[in-house]
Amino acid sequence: MRARVTVYPRPEILDPQGKAIHQALGRIGIEGVEKVRAGKSFEIDLSHQDPEEATKVLERICQKLLANTVVEDYEVELLPGGAG
Amino acid sequence: MRARVTVYPRPEILDPQGKAIHQALGRIGIEGVEKVRAGKSFEIDLSHQDPEEATKVLERICQKLLANTVVEDYEVELLPGGAG
Repeated sequence: MRARVTVYPRPEILDPQGKAIHQALGRIGIEGVEKVRAGKSFEIDLSHQDPEEATKVLERICQKLLANTVVEDYEVELLPGGAG
Repeated sequence: MRARVTVYPRPEILDPQGKAIHQALGRIGIEGVEKVRAGKSFEIDLSHQDPEEATKVLERICQKLLANTVVEDYEVELLPGGAG
């Protein structure tokens, strides 16, 4: 089973990388961008076939390793198409 | 309009961060993980209302700033729910 985990700074936390990208877009002449949030994405293949079990493992992975939950939010998505 | 851009190392390119995470998961006793790819995620709010126009702008943003297309692939998704 394949999953995607996305980790972003919490809304109340400063996001200097997102801000820098937003400013850089203005400098290179790309208009119409209102906001950029910069985060991390992880594509994870699991041997678990059961979606509930996979979600539990992914939550553990996020809390133990991928996200710093004091300053970051995470989102877990199971992707269609299995481990393909 | 809100969009998400995901940038990953190309499949043929080494992904040391993904490999390090995979190994770390083994060390902290989380089993059943077959592969981890580590990438970047960007949430972008655009003032464009037209999905086609928004996609064009996002492609430019990826090619000019967010992705190094020699070693990285990118994916653009328009998110439902507009700029909310």
